[in-house]
Formats: sequence, structure tokens, C-alpha cells
Amino acid sequence: MNPQEAGIDEGISEMIATTKSAAGKPNAAPIGIITTVDDDGARAYQVKLYRGSQTRANVLETGRLAANATTDAILFVETAFDDLSTECFTDFEGFPVLWEATAWIIFTSELVEEREDYLRFQLCPQAVKINRKEVKAINRGLNAVIEATILATRVSMTKDKREREELRKELERYAAIVAKCGGWREREAMGMLKEKFLHGAE
Amino acid sequence: MNPQEAGIDEGISEMIATTKSAAGKPNAAPIGIITTVDDDGARAYQVKLYRGSQTRANVLETGRLAANATTDAILFVETAFDDLSTECFTDFEGFPVLWEATAWIIFTSELVEEREDYLRFQLCPQAVKINRKEVKAINRGLNAVIEATILATRVSMTKDKREREELRKELERYAAIVAKCGGWREREAMGMLKEKFLHGAE
Repeated sequence: MNPQEAGIDEGISEMIATTKSAAGKPNAAPIGIITTVDDDGARAYQVKLYRGSQTRANVLETGRLAANATTDAILFVETAFDDLSTECFTDFEGFPVLWEATAWIIFTSELVEEREDYLRFQLCPQAVKINRKEVKAINRGLNAVIEATILATRVSMTKDKREREELRKELERYAAIVAKCGGWREREAMGMLKEKFLHGAE
Repeated sequence: MNPQEAGIDEGISEMIATTKSAAGKPNAAPIGIITTVDDDGARAYQVKLYRGSQTRANVLETGRLAANATTDAILFVETAFDDLSTECFTDFEGFPVLWEATAWIIFTSELVEEREDYLRFQLCPQAVKINRKEVKAINRGLNAVIEATILATRVSMTKDKREREELRKELERYAAIVAKCGGWREREAMGMLKEKFLHGAE
């Protein structure tokens, strides 16, 4: 049971977290799994969950979280802003995960730090499933979508007009990278983001 | 013989090009393989090779180029600035490729456009070899290294002091992402880049 095999390596792995509420309602949202490696090579997994997120509410209720590996730009944008329809989910070891993911890792969670804006949980892997291995060349457009998604979530939180203008300019820089380097999924994802952004800026 | 299986998808795939001179000396350098898909789903592959690059000289001499798929941040930085030692290369269909690559695609090239600063070649796949499939979560640090490598090559070309200062600031932004999100390979690669950059700014 090795999360490394499922794509989780040292540093922060950008993935989709799936969770469920105590009542069993599934949720999906982007997440960063923090992996640290000590001098003996032992790995520890953590996650910071921010105030107001459904992922955080669900983890507090059920003590579990699944990390879904994917390189689908659209999935990152969709799960950042909208609820996925139930057909996007399937079941792994009694827990909701995403059909489309290339790998699933189920973690149990333990609260280790409480801060004003986030809670930090230690994660312990319980089950790993590899669905699909592949070779994938680096695409700058894909990462531009990830960076732009992070920006767009910040826009929805800031009221300062000048700061918003700055964020909008940065978003345009990422949009230019997507237009030049992305495939259709990245272009579609950036189109969705731009719409969200304009909405959030109203 | 499908380059898509070897990780080359629509948009620009950031890879390492290996080539050889007419005399047989191998070379490796980062490259962007441009893939376009027409309305019928047919794929075409192109590459722009810039003035002064060894890859360009070799492609003009031999009419061939191998695209090596990798997510190794260090390999991108090394091949952007230094010559790889011969032990890094192996042979595929009589052509030099990189041991470490997850896949190899050999292309023949045809010159289709001549510009002041670059030549554009149409690429035709001749052989594909998949070495290692994997699951890999997105790491923002890896892409920050790719973006920073592009910046660093620009620094070495610009003499304008203010422009250099701008590039240096951008590089610091990427270095911060690597420090936060990268693993040891990304940190090592960014360390190498910073040294190159300071050198180039002298």
C-alpha cells in the first residue's frame, strides 16, 4: 500500500479530494496532499483544510478522505466551483471516489493543528488502487489552468478592487499560455474559469 | 505507432529532444512538440527550432529527431544549459535517446517554414517505444521549474538591465512555488537554475 505508486510524491500533490458527509452525501474538491520525507526515507502525509470548505466539514464528520489522481484540467475547475453530479462518483472500499481518476488513495485523518484559517490533518493511507498508468508529457497549459484556478478562488474572496485587477491581469497571462500550449481540455477549462472570474468580479 | 500513447497530446508537449550530428555526436535539449488535431481527428506534429541551437544544426544535418518523455525537472535544466555526458544516452533504432525517458518517439523532419529567428519542421513519427508507464499527480513545483527554465534562457539573451530585473523577480516567484510545492528534484533543479541565472546576469 504505497501512495507513491499512486502518484503522490514529495512536496505538494495537486489532486481531487472526495469525501462524504455523515449522511452519506459525496463531495469533490481540489486539494494539496503534503508529503514530507524524513532522513530515513519515511513518508508522512498531511493536508490543510480551510474554513468554509465542504471537504473540511466532511473530514471532521467522518475522519476520512480519498485522494483522486488526475491530469484532467476540466475536473479541477469543475470541482473548485461546482458540485459534481452523482454519476461522476463510484465506490471504493465503501467510500466515494471519481470514475475518471487514474488512482485512488483512501486516508484516515487525525487533526494535528488548529489555526484561525485552516485545520491541519495527519493522513494515514488505508487503501490504494491504481486504475490506469500512462505516459504523459508536460503541458504548460495544464499547469496554467491549475495556477489560474487558485487565482480564481482568491478573486471570489477578495473585495479590494486594485487587487482584483492584479489577479485579472495574472489570469490573462495564464490564459495566453493555455491558448498557446494547451489542448482542448485546457482551453475548455480556461473558458469555464474566465466565466467564473467575470462572475466573481461583479 | 501512436505518439499519443507516448505522452504527446494536443497542444505543446514539453520534452527533451535528442539528436545527433552527421559525425554521430549526440545532443539533448528541451523542446516543444506542437500537436494539432484537425476536424477529422488526424494529428500533425511540428517543431520550431531557433537560431543557434545544436538541435537545429543536427536536424538540418540528419533529418531526424527523437522526442524523450520525462517529468524529471533536473533533466530539463541540465539539457537547457549543459551537455549531457555520453552515459546518459542509449540507442533506439540506431538513434541516441535518453536512458531515463519514460518513452521515445523517433521523428523524421521536413522543413516547412523559414523565419528570421526559427525554422519550422513538420515531423513524421517513425518509431515509438514506451519504457515506463506511471501515475503522477500534478506538482506545481515541477512546472515552476519548466517556466523558470524558459525565463533563464531568456535572461542569457537579454542585455537590457531593467528587463533582466523583471525576469529576476519572476524567477523568484517560481522559486517560491518550488520551495513550497516541489520535491527534492525540483529544489535541486531550481538551485541549478538560480546559479545559471546569477552567472548569466553578470
